[in-house]
Amino acid sequence: MIYTRQIRVEFNHCDPAGIVFYPRYFEMTNSVAENFFRDVVQLPYEEMMARGGGVPTARLEVTFHAPSRLGDLLDWRMQVLRLGGSSLDLSIEAQGADRKRVSVALTLVNVNAKGRPQPWSDEVRQRITTFIEAE
Amino acid sequence: MIYTRQIRVEFNHCDPAGIVFYPRYFEMTNSVAENFFRDVVQLPYEEMMARGGGVPTARLEVTFHAPSRLGDLLDWRMQVLRLGGSSLDLSIEAQGADRKRVSVALTLVNVNAKGRPQPWSDEVRQRITTFIEAE
Amino acid sequence: MIYTRQIRVEFNHCDPAGIVFYPRYFEMTNSVAENFFRDVVQLPYEEMMARGGGVPTARLEVTFHAPSRLGDLLDWRMQVLRLGGSSLDLSIEAQGADRKRVSVALTLVNVNAKGRPQPWSDEVRQRITTFIEAE
Amino acid sequence: MIYTRQIRVEFNHCDPAGIVFYPRYFEMTNSVAENFFRDVVQLPYEEMMARGGGVPTARLEVTFHAPSRLGDLLDWRMQVLRLGGSSLDLSIEAQGADRKRVSVALTLVNVNAKGRPQPWSDEVRQRITTFIEAE
Repeated sequence: MIYTRQIRVEFNHCDPAGIVFYPRYFEMTNSVAENFFRDVVQLPYEEMMARGGGVPTARLEVTFHAPSRLGDLLDWRMQVLRLGGSSLDLSIEAQGADRKRVSVALTLVNVNAKGRPQPWSDEVRQRITTFIEAE
Repeated sequence: MIYTRQIRVEFNHCDPAGIVFYPRYFEMTNSVAENFFRDVVQLPYEEMMARGGGVPTARLEVTFHAPSRLGDLLDWRMQVLRLGGSSLDLSIEAQGADRKRVSVALTLVNVNAKGRPQPWSDEVRQRITTFIEAE
Repeated sequence: MIYTRQIRVEFNHCDPAGIVFYPRYFEMTNSVAENFFRDVVQLPYEEMMARGGGVPTARLEVTFHAPSRLGDLLDWRMQVLRLGGSSLDLSIEAQGADRKRVSVALTLVNVNAKGRPQPWSDEVRQRITTFIEAE
Repeated sequence: MIYTRQIRVEFNHCDPAGIVFYPRYFEMTNSVAENFFRDVVQLPYEEMMARGGGVPTARLEVTFHAPSRLGDLLDWRMQVLRLGGSSLDLSIEAQGADRKRVSVALTLVNVNAKGRPQPWSDEVRQRITTFIEAE
């Protein structure tokens, strides 16, 4: 199953060359993952925070294929590559009107209030598994 | 040779968990590279832009070792891994008071006004080579 | 007439106190104005930029009524206070579920490629006037 | 007395017009106030946060006099206009090589863990008063 979000490239994302400044892509990847947790996992980040936990990013691999310009509509597509005991490997890509713009592989880790990895709850594990297996 | 910059973790870098929000690390890596071009290569970004060129980032590999907190002083260390015909492979790391926080390997590409790769000028190539070889 | 946009408060907007960091509100006010120009005035910012012009902000007055928290839905409402020869006075406010969060009065100026104020085109003036007068 | 900070306009501050995007000026004003609290008041934001308090901004008035460009050195100058019971009125201005770029008047409020205004401690009041009165 693929989780999708559409994000318009706005003025605040762009650099003096008129293209997306790469740190802003990571605001977008974070937004995609955050909305996946809200919509699909039904565990909004504010609930995680209220318990003192979170899902910080431990690793990123990124390829920038082509620049994105002010006004472009980006179709973000997210897939789960692997659900670990307390981690989640994701592939998040942005497709422009013509071609792929950026591909990101990242690993999130589920941490407790002390910042230590903790197992996903059964409920979270079940929802992510259902998502992975859905056509 | 190693190029260094010290950056204090400020309020604007931090997320609701009180740690650096990872897109902000890339504002810092971009700042380190930008200042290297200003100080060492003597090619400030505004001069590149005035000619219509730039050095966009083509690839990133990132490992987050430990979180950085509000008020932390980060010692950023940058090394040139490889000077290509029109590319530059860099290692940029942030060291906190205790341990390493984040390691980034990235590739910059020298592009012209059409966004196409172009060879480094002899002057730029010479300055980067001198930097690499300096003790 | 009122132009509206709904923006969810996401992780990237929030500070270590878990509330919207005030510079992020201005990314939102800029987004509201930018989408008004795209949707209503039919003059997307990328078209302005292509001609070398723009609508920089000349003045801001802001009152922060109450903090906004991660996950909050903000209803942004924009009204035109005054259409000048080359300026535009706007009121942009964010309403949360309970109460108003922030009120912004701002002045945009229509500038040419040299950064000098220039009159609005007849077409732009007509579209903004139609918006103002619509019920 | 005037508190000063110098900030270079970097790539991450600039918009597609090659000038400082106005929300980034507020990252700078926040940084100036934050460093004033660290250096002069000796109350770093991380200490406030650890006690659950903070100094959110309640009001802003801003005039943008002239654009700032990539590479510009901005001399920020901060003065205390008024020390209230639980508030602080500040004037923060950025001066470029040629002329003033932006003037900000803002009010900070000292809040407790419930977000309610609380009186400044005697120590903080004393340090700010000493700063105001110093030549």
